[in-house]
Amino acid sequence: MSGPLPSWNDGPAKSAILDFVRATADPKSPAFVPEKDRIATFDQDGTLWVEHPMYTQLAFALARLAELAPQHPEWKTTEPFKSTLAGDMAAFAKFTLADLETLVAASHAGMSTDAFREMVSDWIGKAKHPRWDRPYTDLVYKPMLEVMQYFEDNGFKNYIVTGGGQAFVRAYAERVYGMMPEQIIGSSLETQFEYDGDGRAILMRPPKLLLYNDSSGKPQDIYLFLGRPPLAAFGNSTGDQQMLEYTQAAAGMRLAFLVLHDDAAREYDYGPASPQADTKFGAFTQALADTAKAKGWVVASMKNDWRRLFTFES
Amino acid sequence: MSGPLPSWNDGPAKSAILDFVRATADPKSPAFVPEKDRIATFDQDGTLWVEHPMYTQLAFALARLAELAPQHPEWKTTEPFKSTLAGDMAAFAKFTLADLETLVAASHAGMSTDAFREMVSDWIGKAKHPRWDRPYTDLVYKPMLEVMQYFEDNGFKNYIVTGGGQAFVRAYAERVYGMMPEQIIGSSLETQFEYDGDGRAILMRPPKLLLYNDSSGKPQDIYLFLGRPPLAAFGNSTGDQQMLEYTQAAAGMRLAFLVLHDDAAREYDYGPASPQADTKFGAFTQALADTAKAKGWVVASMKNDWRRLFTFES
Repeated sequence: MSGPLPSWNDGPAKSAILDFVRATADPKSPAFVPEKDRIATFDQDGTLWVEHPMYTQLAFALARLAELAPQHPEWKTTEPFKSTLAGDMAAFAKFTLADLETLVAASHAGMSTDAFREMVSDWIGKAKHPRWDRPYTDLVYKPMLEVMQYFEDNGFKNYIVTGGGQAFVRAYAERVYGMMPEQIIGSSLETQFEYDGDGRAILMRPPKLLLYNDSSGKPQDIYLFLGRPPLAAFGNSTGDQQMLEYTQAAAGMRLAFLVLHDDAAREYDYGPASPQADTKFGAFTQALADTAKAKGWVVASMKNDWRRLFTFES
Repeated sequence: MSGPLPSWNDGPAKSAILDFVRATADPKSPAFVPEKDRIATFDQDGTLWVEHPMYTQLAFALARLAELAPQHPEWKTTEPFKSTLAGDMAAFAKFTLADLETLVAASHAGMSTDAFREMVSDWIGKAKHPRWDRPYTDLVYKPMLEVMQYFEDNGFKNYIVTGGGQAFVRAYAERVYGMMPEQIIGSSLETQFEYDGDGRAILMRPPKLLLYNDSSGKPQDIYLFLGRPPLAAFGNSTGDQQMLEYTQAAAGMRLAFLVLHDDAAREYDYGPASPQADTKFGAFTQALADTAKAKGWVVASMKNDWRRLFTFES
């Protein structure tokens, strides 16, 4: 198989990507955009890698909480810690996003930025996804890696714009995506400048949210970090809608793209037609499908548009 | 004059820059750093351009307030607006930084991000510095433009890290410095995602500070935007101290650099030996001088190290 995007089946989704890149990167095209403004943004969970049965970062949080539990006897009697530590998956399934955020705050704060990076790096080097029994970082979608490579080969600068933690993703982004820390925009805790015992400047992580980079937060933070809308934006859920709207509202040719999880055999099915559509991990509701249709967004079917999902599949 | 940094006189400051770049960018050097990690950060006011008699952005704020005053009759009787609008410079000189921030908030918020950029762009194209009677953007230091160019030619990525407003600086940064919006880190208001009357996604600027990018805010925001300390950092005041400490605390060869304003004839003298040392526009106190000495930071004397200051001088 030659040409770009070999893991994609021919069809409107693949064509939309190829046509868009040719139109914006070819100096002879009327929609040409100079290289300095060629920006593409990618949601991570559910767009670049598997987000079920739960976000990878939540699996990290649970592992950390289990480690920390002996120092927090009060967690045995306080929700959302009690059910979590007891492994009560029925209760866990009913947690609100606020409950999940409480778990994340308790497991992600109180150390230096350097210590946190080490912690994530250690965990993600060892932890495995329950379904495939492989490292989470193996579960990056090969078709999307090809899209990112194709964009980069055509002078685009790629950014991850994730509701997940910026510091979490940065800990493995260079190894997994070849992306440097400045290419990762995500939810962030504040940091606090301090001096350690030797008078050396360090940054600590207090449990205080600075940026919640989901839904409206995505365009807001794209503006904060990049100062302008991207040319192309890729997402897979309601949390990406505003990013796609912000992308499309700007002048000139833009690409707004959604990945639809409709492949229970090879991955998961939680599209609008599925009983899983209202999942808290990457909801693709009927309302989002309607918006996508009304606004002319490209929707790629994982089942029909992707020849293969993962690099480890031959 | 051939070679890099032609507007610099030979001396320890110029040598420090040349030596540092050679040591970090030459693959044969033991201190070599791969290009992807070659980051340099530059304070703006007083480091890249003139900051006296007041920050340029404050001059913009005053012009905006005069425009807005008819819609705010209450300003006639409320400080800090009253003295400001009356042109009472004695009172103005006594304003605290909090007063100045109040003026900035009242003049910088309440419009869309696009409208604000237009506003700044219009103003800075016309406004002139009172001493030189030239556009503020002519008052960028030629020696520092040469440093930025020299870094860039050697594979560094430059960033402005300013206590001033990120959106303000971005409005002229490409024209003046050749820097794209993602290279500007500064104090920022929150933005708010909304739909305009046509249902188009826009971002508004509510009067709510998100990042105060001065002093400890500088390393905190460098971490937020770039995820790691720079290799080299340039500043000129107490507000840059933590950025330089954060830079120097990291492993490997680093450059921490201060510009000293000691040239009343060609510019201004507000170094530690001057009665102006405690100015609120770029204080270089004796304590900062002592810290610089103790930590081995390079201090460039504007009077002795710079052959010429501005591009318009031949």
